[in-house]
Amino acid sequence: MSFTYNRLDKDNVALLMVDHQAGLLSLVRDFSPDDFKNNVLALADIAKFFEIPTILTTSFEDGPNGPMVPELKETFPQAPYLARPGQINAWDNEEFVAAIKATGKKQLLIAGVVTEVCVAFPALSALEEGYEVFVVTDASGTFNQTTRDAAWDRMSQAGAQLMTWFGVGCELHRDWRNDIEGFGGLLAGHLPAYANLMQSYNQQSQLN
Amino acid sequence: MSFTYNRLDKDNVALLMVDHQAGLLSLVRDFSPDDFKNNVLALADIAKFFEIPTILTTSFEDGPNGPMVPELKETFPQAPYLARPGQINAWDNEEFVAAIKATGKKQLLIAGVVTEVCVAFPALSALEEGYEVFVVTDASGTFNQTTRDAAWDRMSQAGAQLMTWFGVGCELHRDWRNDIEGFGGLLAGHLPAYANLMQSYNQQSQLN
Amino acid sequence: MSFTYNRLDKDNVALLMVDHQAGLLSLVRDFSPDDFKNNVLALADIAKFFEIPTILTTSFEDGPNGPMVPELKETFPQAPYLARPGQINAWDNEEFVAAIKATGKKQLLIAGVVTEVCVAFPALSALEEGYEVFVVTDASGTFNQTTRDAAWDRMSQAGAQLMTWFGVGCELHRDWRNDIEGFGGLLAGHLPAYANLMQSYNQQSQLN
Amino acid sequence: MSFTYNRLDKDNVALLMVDHQAGLLSLVRDFSPDDFKNNVLALADIAKFFEIPTILTTSFEDGPNGPMVPELKETFPQAPYLARPGQINAWDNEEFVAAIKATGKKQLLIAGVVTEVCVAFPALSALEEGYEVFVVTDASGTFNQTTRDAAWDRMSQAGAQLMTWFGVGCELHRDWRNDIEGFGGLLAGHLPAYANLMQSYNQQSQLN
Amino acid sequence: MSFTYNRLDKDNVALLMVDHQAGLLSLVRDFSPDDFKNNVLALADIAKFFEIPTILTTSFEDGPNGPMVPELKETFPQAPYLARPGQINAWDNEEFVAAIKATGKKQLLIAGVVTEVCVAFPALSALEEGYEVFVVTDASGTFNQTTRDAAWDRMSQAGAQLMTWFGVGCELHRDWRNDIEGFGGLLAGHLPAYANLMQSYNQQSQLN
Amino acid sequence: MSFTYNRLDKDNVALLMVDHQAGLLSLVRDFSPDDFKNNVLALADIAKFFEIPTILTTSFEDGPNGPMVPELKETFPQAPYLARPGQINAWDNEEFVAAIKATGKKQLLIAGVVTEVCVAFPALSALEEGYEVFVVTDASGTFNQTTRDAAWDRMSQAGAQLMTWFGVGCELHRDWRNDIEGFGGLLAGHLPAYANLMQSYNQQSQLN
Amino acid sequence: MSFTYNRLDKDNVALLMVDHQAGLLSLVRDFSPDDFKNNVLALADIAKFFEIPTILTTSFEDGPNGPMVPELKETFPQAPYLARPGQINAWDNEEFVAAIKATGKKQLLIAGVVTEVCVAFPALSALEEGYEVFVVTDASGTFNQTTRDAAWDRMSQAGAQLMTWFGVGCELHRDWRNDIEGFGGLLAGHLPAYANLMQSYNQQSQLN
Amino acid sequence: MSFTYNRLDKDNVALLMVDHQAGLLSLVRDFSPDDFKNNVLALADIAKFFEIPTILTTSFEDGPNGPMVPELKETFPQAPYLARPGQINAWDNEEFVAAIKATGKKQLLIAGVVTEVCVAFPALSALEEGYEVFVVTDASGTFNQTTRDAAWDRMSQAGAQLMTWFGVGCELHRDWRNDIEGFGGLLAGHLPAYANLMQSYNQQSQLN
Repeated sequence: MSFTYNRLDKDNVALLMVDHQAGLLSLVRDFSPDDFKNNVLALADIAKFFEIPTILTTSFEDGPNGPMVPELKETFPQAPYLARPGQINAWDNEEFVAAIKATGKKQLLIAGVVTEVCVAFPALSALEEGYEVFVVTDASGTFNQTTRDAAWDRMSQAGAQLMTWFGVGCELHRDWRNDIEGFGGLLAGHLPAYANLMQSYNQQSQLN
Repeated sequence: MSFTYNRLDKDNVALLMVDHQAGLLSLVRDFSPDDFKNNVLALADIAKFFEIPTILTTSFEDGPNGPMVPELKETFPQAPYLARPGQINAWDNEEFVAAIKATGKKQLLIAGVVTEVCVAFPALSALEEGYEVFVVTDASGTFNQTTRDAAWDRMSQAGAQLMTWFGVGCELHRDWRNDIEGFGGLLAGHLPAYANLMQSYNQQSQLN
Repeated sequence: MSFTYNRLDKDNVALLMVDHQAGLLSLVRDFSPDDFKNNVLALADIAKFFEIPTILTTSFEDGPNGPMVPELKETFPQAPYLARPGQINAWDNEEFVAAIKATGKKQLLIAGVVTEVCVAFPALSALEEGYEVFVVTDASGTFNQTTRDAAWDRMSQAGAQLMTWFGVGCELHRDWRNDIEGFGGLLAGHLPAYANLMQSYNQQSQLN
Repeated sequence: MSFTYNRLDKDNVALLMVDHQAGLLSLVRDFSPDDFKNNVLALADIAKFFEIPTILTTSFEDGPNGPMVPELKETFPQAPYLARPGQINAWDNEEFVAAIKATGKKQLLIAGVVTEVCVAFPALSALEEGYEVFVVTDASGTFNQTTRDAAWDRMSQAGAQLMTWFGVGCELHRDWRNDIEGFGGLLAGHLPAYANLMQSYNQQSQLN
Repeated sequence: MSFTYNRLDKDNVALLMVDHQAGLLSLVRDFSPDDFKNNVLALADIAKFFEIPTILTTSFEDGPNGPMVPELKETFPQAPYLARPGQINAWDNEEFVAAIKATGKKQLLIAGVVTEVCVAFPALSALEEGYEVFVVTDASGTFNQTTRDAAWDRMSQAGAQLMTWFGVGCELHRDWRNDIEGFGGLLAGHLPAYANLMQSYNQQSQLN
Repeated sequence: MSFTYNRLDKDNVALLMVDHQAGLLSLVRDFSPDDFKNNVLALADIAKFFEIPTILTTSFEDGPNGPMVPELKETFPQAPYLARPGQINAWDNEEFVAAIKATGKKQLLIAGVVTEVCVAFPALSALEEGYEVFVVTDASGTFNQTTRDAAWDRMSQAGAQLMTWFGVGCELHRDWRNDIEGFGGLLAGHLPAYANLMQSYNQQSQLN
Repeated sequence: MSFTYNRLDKDNVALLMVDHQAGLLSLVRDFSPDDFKNNVLALADIAKFFEIPTILTTSFEDGPNGPMVPELKETFPQAPYLARPGQINAWDNEEFVAAIKATGKKQLLIAGVVTEVCVAFPALSALEEGYEVFVVTDASGTFNQTTRDAAWDRMSQAGAQLMTWFGVGCELHRDWRNDIEGFGGLLAGHLPAYANLMQSYNQQSQLN
Repeated sequence: MSFTYNRLDKDNVALLMVDHQAGLLSLVRDFSPDDFKNNVLALADIAKFFEIPTILTTSFEDGPNGPMVPELKETFPQAPYLARPGQINAWDNEEFVAAIKATGKKQLLIAGVVTEVCVAFPALSALEEGYEVFVVTDASGTFNQTTRDAAWDRMSQAGAQLMTWFGVGCELHRDWRNDIEGFGGLLAGHLPAYANLMQSYNQQSQLN
């Protein structure tokens, strides 16, 4: 029962952001709104920092589901953006899959709203096609804890790996020496407790 | 370790509603009564919407366990209805299994009360017979969170997939264009937060 | 330190429903959506059952706050309905206060969204003017438990009485013999666990 | 703002057990069933131990609310037992109040189901009539934590004292020397953790 | 990936009760004392009801760990009782294993205190020797929820099945007709909510 | 027992921000870091929006307690800033009290870290001197929920009013018409769920 | 409704430690064992640091309740130590009250096990006799959260002030300059998160 | 699907303590600070007791992450101590891996901060290289429960075994007779509830 640790590799990974839309976000109740907003934007900043090909998609964005959160559009102005005409599983949208294949990557980070549908469905489809799937669980939200637990179990049993944005960032970065200030700044912007450590440290450095 | 994603297929799935009886429901404490009622009826409405063959069964309905909740009888007036004379595992009731086989379906959605018995026992029996089993976890209730966690683990390790009613509905529907109004109405009736989105949207559409 | 128990009196009470609007409801996170919807509609049904003068008010209903939930309009088609042009504390709206005074009642039931603003502000204003104030806490929602706890404390210390819809209904009804079937039906519609008791009871009565 | 500590006095206290009926108990969700059963029976055993006049009352016991739990009838075979014909507030039943007055006590212990109605209403009525009211909170149950919090606040602000069965027993007993074995046995029967202490102690005493 | 459902079989199962001692029980904090006492005694009553060979064992019962809870001794007066001289994993005690082998059973129910040691160690040992292992999770306790979650995961991944006493009883009983009154009485004694159902039912039967 | 509702008045209120320092913030565990950061900055933005005199103070900022969070300094560049040389209760610092008196205001908003010390001590001192005290509870943090509950009770019983930043903003603003865009922008920046409502609304307005 | 802030005054306060006995501690479930041990010892260290007269008392220490925790005896070797022969309310023990009166203090800090009995009873007795009572809530433990909530409410309504050990220490110390190292050391020993701040600070000071 | 139970073997195991640094510890919020400190030190004491080769490593200890907690350095004065210059996954540090290989052990206990990075990354690397990996979950901390759940799932699915310090100690000790006093003292120092049992036991032994 040998195990191979295929780490997230910034040269071999793409990010799928699925249905982070203003209306759908009001359904998310397994995170506080502040926490969830921070998690989603942290993941976006990580993708930008590591220049990871990112694909955005929405479902019925002109209806009650509402527009994609504007910060995502701003962070990824050049990213493929697929407003799906009706497919619930984004993988059923041929352009979406084509955009993924065009990246040439074999590792997929997936986050979305709601977890058991907009994340789980394309995650299972991607696994079937042989991709390595990493679910960014804290940038994915749903109705409540019960729904989340069931969705996580289904994806995990199918072979998806459950991660969170901080772990994703660290596994991609590998070594602080690759860019101490850049990565530190990214963390400080999304981890208030880490920002506090840095402020105390910096003040004391200046005082001495 | 390849994975095949056999999606829920409305033409190949049957639903088993096991022991949703008025007395037994008083034992359910892992959901609020409002949430649980809504989840059970949402699942029933999904089955009706997709015309999924549904089989109802009860245990000792003339005793303390009480009658099946009336909304289920009303939703499925033509469904096979098996008042079991004593078998705890519904799969031990030959007529129940015969009714399932008569549907000719290979995917089974199962929900019931209580989870670790009325759901888990037939789920494990169905897995042994080669069915694909999808447990509708939020339409299945039990005594407390501990009991639920143990039951989920046992079923998941045996190969059952843990889902919730919303995921079931979406995986069956596949594409909103198949029936936007019908499916939207179904969701609005069981997701108050989604109904709110629709009301805001509709009002604004009228105003403009 | 003598205490006088001024019970809720159906001939001396009015109900204020403040800002139960589709948009604002998406902010409520101290109840599950199913529970909160049920609580609000239960309170409305109680007011209708006891023919309590009810006043509806909204804040910026043509903007992001959204329209009042349609069930409330339907339940109270004749009720004064005040779409406030900007006042946050409904009591600052002269027509709203006039409508209250027109009822001639001295006891006020208040529910709204969000608790610490739309409920607390008019509650404190009403207390200052000498009304007896009963906050229907479970038909009032807000961002989280912390916010709720603070709001409850502020209102309670000012003299408001904290109630829930079931207690309101029972204190108004006083004696089941006033209308057994009517009140029982009301409870069955909003307390699934009580509905279950009634179904078991009724079935057994028919069997015997 | 001087304070007088009127302790519970076994010669001046009566116990009111309100609506602990089999059906209504299924509504109680702020305690686990095991905990609540234990708390109610512990309170009953305390009343019996101290020979406190106890009054039992039920609401519609021939209907869905169900019969009073049999252990209470067995513990208090001689107690006044008032099956109320319809009054929700037991204090509105003249015989109930007469039975209380017949005890000649000025301190009232009250427990019941559900807290905000069957406990709060008679508690407030008793306070108005000048009784000292002690609510036995853990032998009183209701729908959920929110409902409980609101009910506690209303009663506390009106002057009722919130207690639990263990505190009631200890305040009545005052000094272990009054009956070490009797009171110790009572505690051991209802506090498994205390029973464990006694078993370890007794075994070691025998070994030495 | 076929699955075989080897149900608990009352003719092929033995029960191991490991270290339910008065002192060790004070360490259990993942259940309320009332709930845990009830769960342990319910499991014992089930074993007695189905005449399942049961083996009791303790660790240092003359020291701080304290004596086995007296109810277990009383329920199983003839059971092998092994006071281990020092082995932490009961499976390291040859007499314990010999007693198990003497039963000739291949299915083992295991419960104990604390879960990650007294249950997990013999469970893993038994799995290695080819037994089918069923952990009775709610009759097994430990320090806190974190500890429990880790212990459950370790045992489940090794192949143990996680169950609870109610599921065990039902899987053994199979059909109510095997002994309706006996099994019903067992449940009523350990499920207060089910006892309430029976009381309401019985009263109504008598009234009619 | 008449009640006077002295609303927060933007012309009669001052804000005290006590010890929001990088080191001390690491002690706060009754809020998630994201939530707490947002709450503190929201309160600061409110004070700036309404031009409320604000006084900042720190304790040993050159030591382990660390520097005041930089956003506060940036928001209030002109505010009195008192680095206390040792007084734990900021009210014991004469300059701090002098700064408060210099504002001429009689209503004080207080927030700080940790709640039971840095907030409660000056709150009680201010009450004694006749100020109206409003604690901004969600911009005040401490070690855990137990500590918070005790601190809130002590302050509330002494006459402080418990509020949260959203309630403070709304009670100060009084009427949306005073500045719809300004106040809406403030809310959108600190209430992600409200920002979502606005985005959906705005998109639809543009589409129509 | 004027308020006087009588701060804890190290020259006018005594500490009562009631029934922190090895057996009784096993009943405490509203804190984790680690947290509770730390809280009790922190309070003891505070009393020692400020040389506050301290009185220890136990109940039946030769029986199942067990001996006082040894650290308390070691911290207060000269303190009055009253092994009560049977009085549950320590205030009923004349020597205990005499010891308190002998201190000449008018402020009493009280902590004990269990909260609603061993703390609440003497707290209420002391309030009646005109003492200022400060309950150290986190050094007082009981069976569960419900019991704690009721006990806190009863004491608070009677006029006791609810505090925690950290607040007690800070209110007594008043100004860090009175003894920076001593008080800092005390905090570091009982607040791991504060100790971490000090270690980071000290290392950086040495590096510079 | 046979299972082999490779128990922790004190002669074949090494311990890796990863990044328990003063700054990083302030990020840990899935344990109370008291609990976490106790868990980490308990694990260290176990390693010392069984003379398990231990390797310490830190990340940027001269920066905001802060120094390793001093108790660990003191407990393992001779242990390899690797201050990594930048590698996030300690396994990427060649000296770290060399130190592990130098121990010649095939079982690795891993604990660290934060769980999903500093524990999970080397755990997965070690699994890939064929080590048996045992994660000491309660001596490993992270931002919140969600992050922990995801990290546990990823490690468990890869083949790591989830344990806690108490289970580790017991699995290593195997038999109390190997050193009753030593192991008992270790437990008493880190399990306050067990220390209480021992104190009661010892007192009674002396009395008799």
